[in-house]
Amino acid sequence: MTTNATSPGRPRPERRQPGQDWTSWPTYDSAVLGFRDHWYPVLWSEQVGRKPVAVTLLGENIALVREGEEIHALHDRCPHRGVPLSLGRRQFPGTVSCPYHGWTYDLKDGNLCGVLTDGPESPIAGRVKVRTYPVKQRFGLIWVYVGDAEDPHPLEDDLPEELRDNRFVIGGRTEVRKGNWRFAAENGFDEGHAKYLHNTALWRLFKVMPAWNKTRIVERGDWLVRVQDEVHWEADMPGLGKWTNKRWWKRMPLPDAPGKAQNINPVIKSLDLPGFVSIRMPGILRVAYPHFIHYEWYVPVDTDHVRYVQLMVRFETGARAGLFKLKYLTAIRWLFHGQFTAQDAWMVDVMNAPPEKLYRPDLSLTAWRRKVEQSEPKVQPYER
Amino acid sequence: MTTNATSPGRPRPERRQPGQDWTSWPTYDSAVLGFRDHWYPVLWSEQVGRKPVAVTLLGENIALVREGEEIHALHDRCPHRGVPLSLGRRQFPGTVSCPYHGWTYDLKDGNLCGVLTDGPESPIAGRVKVRTYPVKQRFGLIWVYVGDAEDPHPLEDDLPEELRDNRFVIGGRTEVRKGNWRFAAENGFDEGHAKYLHNTALWRLFKVMPAWNKTRIVERGDWLVRVQDEVHWEADMPGLGKWTNKRWWKRMPLPDAPGKAQNINPVIKSLDLPGFVSIRMPGILRVAYPHFIHYEWYVPVDTDHVRYVQLMVRFETGARAGLFKLKYLTAIRWLFHGQFTAQDAWMVDVMNAPPEKLYRPDLSLTAWRRKVEQSEPKVQPYER
Amino acid sequence: MTTNATSPGRPRPERRQPGQDWTSWPTYDSAVLGFRDHWYPVLWSEQVGRKPVAVTLLGENIALVREGEEIHALHDRCPHRGVPLSLGRRQFPGTVSCPYHGWTYDLKDGNLCGVLTDGPESPIAGRVKVRTYPVKQRFGLIWVYVGDAEDPHPLEDDLPEELRDNRFVIGGRTEVRKGNWRFAAENGFDEGHAKYLHNTALWRLFKVMPAWNKTRIVERGDWLVRVQDEVHWEADMPGLGKWTNKRWWKRMPLPDAPGKAQNINPVIKSLDLPGFVSIRMPGILRVAYPHFIHYEWYVPVDTDHVRYVQLMVRFETGARAGLFKLKYLTAIRWLFHGQFTAQDAWMVDVMNAPPEKLYRPDLSLTAWRRKVEQSEPKVQPYER
Repeated sequence: MTTNATSPGRPRPERRQPGQDWTSWPTYDSAVLGFRDHWYPVLWSEQVGRKPVAVTLLGENIALVREGEEIHALHDRCPHRGVPLSLGRRQFPGTVSCPYHGWTYDLKDGNLCGVLTDGPESPIAGRVKVRTYPVKQRFGLIWVYVGDAEDPHPLEDDLPEELRDNRFVIGGRTEVRKGNWRFAAENGFDEGHAKYLHNTALWRLFKVMPAWNKTRIVERGDWLVRVQDEVHWEADMPGLGKWTNKRWWKRMPLPDAPGKAQNINPVIKSLDLPGFVSIRMPGILRVAYPHFIHYEWYVPVDTDHVRYVQLMVRFETGARAGLFKLKYLTAIRWLFHGQFTAQDAWMVDVMNAPPEKLYRPDLSLTAWRRKVEQSEPKVQPYER
Repeated sequence: MTTNATSPGRPRPERRQPGQDWTSWPTYDSAVLGFRDHWYPVLWSEQVGRKPVAVTLLGENIALVREGEEIHALHDRCPHRGVPLSLGRRQFPGTVSCPYHGWTYDLKDGNLCGVLTDGPESPIAGRVKVRTYPVKQRFGLIWVYVGDAEDPHPLEDDLPEELRDNRFVIGGRTEVRKGNWRFAAENGFDEGHAKYLHNTALWRLFKVMPAWNKTRIVERGDWLVRVQDEVHWEADMPGLGKWTNKRWWKRMPLPDAPGKAQNINPVIKSLDLPGFVSIRMPGILRVAYPHFIHYEWYVPVDTDHVRYVQLMVRFETGARAGLFKLKYLTAIRWLFHGQFTAQDAWMVDVMNAPPEKLYRPDLSLTAWRRKVEQSEPKVQPYER
Repeated sequence: MTTNATSPGRPRPERRQPGQDWTSWPTYDSAVLGFRDHWYPVLWSEQVGRKPVAVTLLGENIALVREGEEIHALHDRCPHRGVPLSLGRRQFPGTVSCPYHGWTYDLKDGNLCGVLTDGPESPIAGRVKVRTYPVKQRFGLIWVYVGDAEDPHPLEDDLPEELRDNRFVIGGRTEVRKGNWRFAAENGFDEGHAKYLHNTALWRLFKVMPAWNKTRIVERGDWLVRVQDEVHWEADMPGLGKWTNKRWWKRMPLPDAPGKAQNINPVIKSLDLPGFVSIRMPGILRVAYPHFIHYEWYVPVDTDHVRYVQLMVRFETGARAGLFKLKYLTAIRWLFHGQFTAQDAWMVDVMNAPPEKLYRPDLSLTAWRRKVEQSEPKVQPYER
């Protein structure tokens, strides 16, 4: 948009036509703020120091506070007068004090364990609590559980199975981006856009992609997997001309699934995946290359923001892992986790649906929405 | 306003008294976004190159795309997932492709003529359309028709008659300004403000204006014309003192209408105008000087913005036109089309009506509103 | 909050629990924009010159205009088309003219005394009025009365009694701050926060404060006074540790009320105050030290802004007053009226109540709310 040609005013609402909205997926349609009863990655552990840090997760304001090796998560609001605890002071070990009147909370259970300005016998001490959230640290990330279970299920249940008992993670990024989390998740599992949107990405100098595919979605446990039945490297578009994604300096790979690839890493081979890309609740994407896997978490922040967490994993240790780490830091991190997925962020920001009109490759979206619907998840309430 | 003295908070709504609102003109009152079924000038042709340009017109988002000499206008939203087509790529001649999945639209009719990521036999190709808008180029400007007619009336019907078959335009400006289009149109035809608001304008070093007038509004075909029955160059205001707009270095002109002026350009003379200033639907102002005419179009953008298009026309060719063009570029453009009308833009931005309390010279406003009302125009719908 | 960890989205509304809201004080609860029929300080006289100045007071937009020694206050809206009169010109003595059409108003009574663009016999002149507001100047400040009384009560009735007939004011500040005026007033009279929030203020290098108190609120005429029954300079907080506000370089003062202090200024002594801090309608705080008094006015601007007016008074003249003035300008002004109360401004901005959970020291808040309720004030209307 150019300065001259545009204006900031309020646009007229789009008129929705029947069959173009999300009423076929009512649970999904209402999940503006995502799903409760799950573990979500939020920040790198090193991003939370002695000073509390404010985050928003599924629309809930949360203060993250470090105490030694432990990270604690509290509802970010002092019940006294509504001041954010993330602005608080670390007056006594194991506690955080509201900056206003020194209401002091135990980091472990949110108990009001002392009120500095009301003396040692304050009658209200011990009678007020702020909500706390279960926290784990894994792969250098802080994971927070938003849900109602007294005793939440293990973090492992919300991790891809191949990550459950290892420490293979090489690197990653976490950042808040514009747009609802569902657009980000759909973008991740969406087949079609990679072939067009990303054909200007630098990453595509190294990774070729087909011009178009025929695709099927299959279910594998918790996951939906995108299977490529046909791969076309170029197409003669009637009335338009030739459309190609070929690169003369690259060999076109065979349309094999990673499960059938040669020289594949044994951990990835053991997954026996029928396709490269898979997705699962509550919004985790897995892109399996023969030697490494790229993961994305689409963590709901609020209605218009998503926390986008990317992880890169090579299931090896030692020199090979070290070399890959170097490759990650010098290239993959800014080419793929940076410039490539910034194109996705751009689309997730500007898109506006429903209404929508779906096409053949969108069977990945509808399969994902249907799978969400069938899993009967607990929607985070949201008052419009 | 000074920083110290003001604050950004929400003001209390003004209480409206009966007789001070716009209920006497219900059509006009509802025409927040203007009138359909008209041609509107939007940008200079040279402002649209190969890259699409986004504009908003009557609240509708439109992508302007150049193909050779032709300019095309499409609804600026890909029906697939709601990405603006103005962000699209020019992949194949005569088309624009949505940047997300390569949905490719024929610029002429908005037909989805190919879907790059769905192959040559995409079943959806040919079955989706984006709305297109009729476009013309005239006087170096791009004109867009917003309406429902299959076959819209000629652009000529929406032009002042003296401009229909010529190319005399000398120069102009087009820009988006703050404020609703109706305030801008009323400001243009409003008699009173020129005498006070503009008496600090540099343009007034050259053009004198009366202190006050007695005025009548007469109808001439599509136009309303402001006729000056009495012209007063100064006034003794009781209890206040002398109020004058005289300039000692200028002769006061006679209160003649342009139709009676000496040395008048024959085209302007033939209009036989009873007054200098006239207005017509859908919001066109004509200020006729003896040797040139200044026009303004008040093009609705959204509820709070108006596209303000100014044209300066001298009905001559050759050396005289060349000299005037020089005068326009060196003086008129910044003195009149710039600083002078910037004072109008200021008022259109800060005014806030209804409620309002009209005075004698406001018969120009009420005549205009009544004329709009009588012409029974098709109001662009707007949901508050 | 750090850039990475936060996002600007809309937070979920807090769920209110019974007994945590303001329904016990319905008048107070509705007084978002404060109370009518009072005099409010607004700006320093010297801040209003020949050019009109716009202010907002209790949600009303007001233009302040100087004419010689007099300051006049008019509703900041020309009834003609809604242009702010604060943008107007000073065309004739004793008047202000709307910049748009020269509607000219008498500063004394708001009468439309001339319409420049409608000639000397304009039929509307004398038939339109803009609302005016009574204005006084006192202590170098402009005071504006917002109310419905034909003949308002004297400014003196809205001043602390000790200020009624003197000119002892030394200095002060006036500025618009974020947050509703009630949060600012409550913060002023609130006992607890001074001991914790301000224990990092530079001012506290000179003024010691207890760690916690036992407090009583007593009524003295128009005022509520906070009385310290017990003063504790430090506390052993069970399970936490020692909490102290002692300063080794300062002697702890006795918990005496200013009325009993030695060497007290005779004017302050005569007030016979049982405590340092008192508050009264419509939102005036008095902090009495033995030799000077600090006052705060919490003047409602709009729902989210408060005009915070601080005055420092030493009830003396001559050399002593001169020395104190020097001390004020070099230290008190930025230490106390600046950095110290900026901590308050921070809290008033970030706090968000109800819901709230009150503790023992909050009896100052409830006493104040009850007193407001009992005084049956006239609430400034506000449409949510």
